[in-house]
Amino acid sequence: MSRVVAGDDPVGIDRALSYARSLGGLVLVTGGIGPTRDDRTRQAVAKMLGQPLHYDARAEGQVRRWCRRHRFPFTRAQRRQTLIPERASAIVNRVGSAPGIWAVSGAGVLVVLPGVPSEMRAMFDRIVPRLRRLAHLPVATRTLRTAGVGETRVDHRLRRLTKLFPEVEVTTLAAPGEVTIQLRSRGRGASRRVERCLRWTVQALGSDLVSADGVSLEAVVLRRLQELNWHLSTAESCTAGMVAARLTRVAGSSAVFHAGAVCYNDRAKQRMLAVPRDLLLKHGAVSRAVALEMARGAVRTLGAEMAVAVSGIAGPGGGSPRKPVGTVHWAVAFPGGSRAIMRHLAGDREKIRTHAACIALDLVRRTLLRIRPRPRRS
Amino acid sequence: MSRVVAGDDPVGIDRALSYARSLGGLVLVTGGIGPTRDDRTRQAVAKMLGQPLHYDARAEGQVRRWCRRHRFPFTRAQRRQTLIPERASAIVNRVGSAPGIWAVSGAGVLVVLPGVPSEMRAMFDRIVPRLRRLAHLPVATRTLRTAGVGETRVDHRLRRLTKLFPEVEVTTLAAPGEVTIQLRSRGRGASRRVERCLRWTVQALGSDLVSADGVSLEAVVLRRLQELNWHLSTAESCTAGMVAARLTRVAGSSAVFHAGAVCYNDRAKQRMLAVPRDLLLKHGAVSRAVALEMARGAVRTLGAEMAVAVSGIAGPGGGSPRKPVGTVHWAVAFPGGSRAIMRHLAGDREKIRTHAACIALDLVRRTLLRIRPRPRRS
Repeated sequence: MSRVVAGDDPVGIDRALSYARSLGGLVLVTGGIGPTRDDRTRQAVAKMLGQPLHYDARAEGQVRRWCRRHRFPFTRAQRRQTLIPERASAIVNRVGSAPGIWAVSGAGVLVVLPGVPSEMRAMFDRIVPRLRRLAHLPVATRTLRTAGVGETRVDHRLRRLTKLFPEVEVTTLAAPGEVTIQLRSRGRGASRRVERCLRWTVQALGSDLVSADGVSLEAVVLRRLQELNWHLSTAESCTAGMVAARLTRVAGSSAVFHAGAVCYNDRAKQRMLAVPRDLLLKHGAVSRAVALEMARGAVRTLGAEMAVAVSGIAGPGGGSPRKPVGTVHWAVAFPGGSRAIMRHLAGDREKIRTHAACIALDLVRRTLLRIRPRPRRS
Repeated sequence: MSRVVAGDDPVGIDRALSYARSLGGLVLVTGGIGPTRDDRTRQAVAKMLGQPLHYDARAEGQVRRWCRRHRFPFTRAQRRQTLIPERASAIVNRVGSAPGIWAVSGAGVLVVLPGVPSEMRAMFDRIVPRLRRLAHLPVATRTLRTAGVGETRVDHRLRRLTKLFPEVEVTTLAAPGEVTIQLRSRGRGASRRVERCLRWTVQALGSDLVSADGVSLEAVVLRRLQELNWHLSTAESCTAGMVAARLTRVAGSSAVFHAGAVCYNDRAKQRMLAVPRDLLLKHGAVSRAVALEMARGAVRTLGAEMAVAVSGIAGPGGGSPRKPVGTVHWAVAFPGGSRAIMRHLAGDREKIRTHAACIALDLVRRTLLRIRPRPRRS
């Protein structure tokens, strides 16, 4: 598989399209099919296919419906979106305005989708069955997620994978604090091979495994809390809302998450979470003692069975020899207990914050694993 | 300019590199130079250059320093990172572990940097002067940002730009609620041309312009608040911390932002912001009245001169015929006044939330523009 990203200039798009076409198979093009002047993909695709553009009735119907729903006039700019190469067909867009393009030729399949992620995803899901039918190739894929360990550690754990399962393609993708692992196999028996490989991988990852079905860390945390019938509150300093924002990315999270405090200075920690002033003066805001008090305070004042707290130095300023930039304390409080951890995180301000938010959620996950031990999935 | 993204398979990388090389000029490669087994860029680059890899002493010194600082052993995997093609040189990485590669040949310049954004950025900034010296080409660039208007509207406002300034390249990049415009020109007089174009664009955008120097919306808001010596608090329902998280991306934001409440249900709005229960029952949480009370409550209970509140329905559930998914209310409260707005946002849950967070910040910006009118920059 190869991916090309071209600039908005027509020459760049032409060049990228012919490179993609030269590789054969499926060419998936995204972006540049909207109504504005720098949307040049329709023209480029028509040129590549050697077919003139014409206004497509089905595309027009869809764009007109979109305009009506959003009370937009059906202008000349909107009409440009209904241009489709002569022997291609329009792909209806049910989320946004721009229709896509579907073209099959001797050289392979060409699919053009909008660049807006939500529209692209919805349309892509709908064309997958058509693509599969064309390809006649079973493909099996499984996605695993880990948290709290780096890519090097995950790679080390999985070092025997390629020898044990040579026909399964393994790719890893790292984000601060998280690694996503994809297992993929093609052809007859693909699904059986991937399942065998999955079982081995789940064993190898142990408690670092967040999910074996692609479910996100926040969704796993919410699901376990819901099983316990517990609510979770957040008390954030350096992550300033990122933990709450991640939790609420999951639809239905309001059943578990009700309230969070963002306390960016000492006064706010006293006011919102009743952290004692003496404690702040004695240990400093970035300390184990204050993180624990923030978590306990969140349980009391925000009203939940469990709370997670983060306090750290995201930089670039604010560090000291004893507490350098990247020093972060986390704590959880829950019925009958509490737990705190500390780590030094590397990277710039945004990386430290993103990483710290991930570890906060992972601390909740690991704490819940201990609270109600359950048989290991295999 | 053309960009290629290749998979982790060696064939894909080889193919992508030779395509990039065939275009001539500067080839900038990122990623795949770490210590793990799927880091294959060093091998691919050496192959393309036709030079064997050797262990580079300067690279080794840098990796050893990194290992010492992070108390990692200098393993065989770490040593792999010091492999550099024979006639190329290492680029020192001051943020992470993997050194980069710098190779000049007849065909152009090849630069290899790590894929980790913070490392890549730091190293790229340091090689820019070397690249400029090689290129002998003055390039002038200016970045403008807008908020609160869509790309179609911005494009319409700037429709005469390409005719008036044919030698300035204009690109726009849209995110939910924000559009970034880049003006770029090359060769002699580039800087003068871009400045003239900039002045015209600033006029055309009026109050939708956030900044003419690439400064982010949140940084502009923080700067204006600091000038007024005001503090800002946040009261978030559907955005659940995203507004606070955006504000605190800016280093030094703690001078202006101290506290934020994430109130994801009615009880939390009562408890944290003292929103009257009757009001919630009468109007519902997603209403003008409640948004205003949230903002006023945040001023009182969190202690700031100004507060911004967001309450909306992000979906996919929770909508009704009267309040469909995407309905969002915002409010600001400040000394001597308050202001509320409502809009229907389109898209999926994440797009609605991102867009809503942006509008919250933009409402603060526009309100501050009115509070202390200042001479329009030109």
